[in-house]
Amino acid sequence: MSSILDNLEWMSELDRERMIDQINGFPDHLSSSLCTEVDVEFTGKGICLCGMGGSAISGDILADCVIRESEYHMSVLRGMELPGWVDKETLLIAVSYSGNTKEVLTVLDTAQSKGLNIVAVTSGGRLMEICEEEGIPYAMVPTGFQPRAALGYLLGSTACILETAGVIPIASNLTHLVDPLKKFQEILVPEVPIEENLAKRTALDLEGVVPVVYSASELSPAALRWHTQINENSKMMAFTGEVPECNHNHIVGWMEGSMDTFCRPVFLRSRTDNPSIKEIMSVTIDVLKEGGKSPVVLDFNEETKIHNLMAAIMVGDFVSYYLAMLNGVDPLPVESIQDLKRRMSSSI
Amino acid sequence: MSSILDNLEWMSELDRERMIDQINGFPDHLSSSLCTEVDVEFTGKGICLCGMGGSAISGDILADCVIRESEYHMSVLRGMELPGWVDKETLLIAVSYSGNTKEVLTVLDTAQSKGLNIVAVTSGGRLMEICEEEGIPYAMVPTGFQPRAALGYLLGSTACILETAGVIPIASNLTHLVDPLKKFQEILVPEVPIEENLAKRTALDLEGVVPVVYSASELSPAALRWHTQINENSKMMAFTGEVPECNHNHIVGWMEGSMDTFCRPVFLRSRTDNPSIKEIMSVTIDVLKEGGKSPVVLDFNEETKIHNLMAAIMVGDFVSYYLAMLNGVDPLPVESIQDLKRRMSSSI
Repeated sequence: MSSILDNLEWMSELDRERMIDQINGFPDHLSSSLCTEVDVEFTGKGICLCGMGGSAISGDILADCVIRESEYHMSVLRGMELPGWVDKETLLIAVSYSGNTKEVLTVLDTAQSKGLNIVAVTSGGRLMEICEEEGIPYAMVPTGFQPRAALGYLLGSTACILETAGVIPIASNLTHLVDPLKKFQEILVPEVPIEENLAKRTALDLEGVVPVVYSASELSPAALRWHTQINENSKMMAFTGEVPECNHNHIVGWMEGSMDTFCRPVFLRSRTDNPSIKEIMSVTIDVLKEGGKSPVVLDFNEETKIHNLMAAIMVGDFVSYYLAMLNGVDPLPVESIQDLKRRMSSSI
Repeated sequence: MSSILDNLEWMSELDRERMIDQINGFPDHLSSSLCTEVDVEFTGKGICLCGMGGSAISGDILADCVIRESEYHMSVLRGMELPGWVDKETLLIAVSYSGNTKEVLTVLDTAQSKGLNIVAVTSGGRLMEICEEEGIPYAMVPTGFQPRAALGYLLGSTACILETAGVIPIASNLTHLVDPLKKFQEILVPEVPIEENLAKRTALDLEGVVPVVYSASELSPAALRWHTQINENSKMMAFTGEVPECNHNHIVGWMEGSMDTFCRPVFLRSRTDNPSIKEIMSVTIDVLKEGGKSPVVLDFNEETKIHNLMAAIMVGDFVSYYLAMLNGVDPLPVESIQDLKRRMSSSI
């Protein structure tokens, strides 16, 4: 089988700004940020992480761990208005890779006026300036990445904040995963041919369709990451859904609709999925197959939920990269986001 | 302009089981359930509503009101596992229209074993039996509807539970809206011709595409309701997104992708949207228009957020009905959901 996905020279020409290096760097970025020290004090019950796009995904990953493994409540705010339950006992984590995300700066302003307990994660920009001026503790991550490609840094730093705050020992758990993730990455890189490369094969399965990425709640941050990475790296539409909720509505669109031929379902399964939901997912996949929908199914069989979540995210990042190659687009630039940001600065 | 959407006889033949009556009944259903009396005691800080599909949407609407207008935390659980923050001080509201939703019964079982403070909303089934056996207070809603068409009843009853519990005076607020909503409905019904009927015109705009329904957080429960009603009533794929998050990822799929021609963006705007987000949404719509994407834009200009939310939900319900007519399908049956439910009972 001959494909551009095994043509390293061609891929290298298309990927002019070496997005592949940023994707390959994930385990190293994670590793290097897992020793971040930030001076956080926290005695409350709730955590609110505010961030947008690539800066918010680390929040989703960690909120999911916090909600399952601790008695703390944690939510991710993608917007401008603090929920009513956020009070002086809440830890507000402001995450903006660039440091200039309007939404995050707006929330920070409100949070300061309310005297909240704040900590930040950024590579610089206005957010860092405010932290310096106001004495707000912050974790510094390296500059020079696309925000979406800084996930390893943002995740590692935020994990350290949560561990220092006494919420959950997630930084320690992630530290143990760095080597296994590096090992896992070896089978996803461009040098590994299609036959042995899960990410390349999956990209070929999703060429020319709109992927709809499903998972149980175990892997829902990974499903969302697939969606946004396919949007930004591959320049494609993509959507997500969650099992079992999708069986109460989406399934009608797949099985009784006519537009489904432009879309293809992808299922991310974790060994640690709830056993009942595993069964439901299995039946759902069977129903879709019998209906001729050709679902793409990926199994993650590691021992822990966080390991499977990290692995699923890594596969998705590589899939989005290979889809960019199949689409003949440079994965790094996101001109339409830049255009919107320019217009926002002039209009608001 | 001649269209089947103005052919009442033809629509009546297609809608064999009179889904139109269930949709038309929304304000009356809401009204009749707003005097529900349930014996709830609550002194905690958090509320967890568990439900799936049509039974969960009332939770989304109310959680959004609670989060903005009170110091309580409320989340909607669409799944089987209670979050770690749920404790004896949490009010668990179990909502299953049929009373036999597996996910809700599973959560209820865990909640009972943990000794949580529980209240239920149902039309009967196993959930009602358990409540009777165990002395769990519950609100009874009428049988005989599709779960998605019982929204008025589920919303009204759950609002009464939250008001009785001292969380938020939302039942009183909804009572004031019943008459205005009945008035508003008069311009959406099948008897009103296309030229004067916003829902018919919108359905025509969405014929043959995959609608992607956007809103700010103000109307996000309405966007989700559009999505699921279009799935179930119209037998079509549909998706949602939220502004401003979509500008950090989705926009690339729309502006730089190739599959966007099968999809069409819909924007639900509320007069009560945050002013900065209004500006962002306006710029986003301009960008999509300049890119030739023809977004469908609907404005809801009432004084309050909850009024606009109810109005947006009503328009969406009628749009999904008219789309069913345009697709030549009976809006009521959802055979693929029934099929999955049958298979679930045998496999789990």
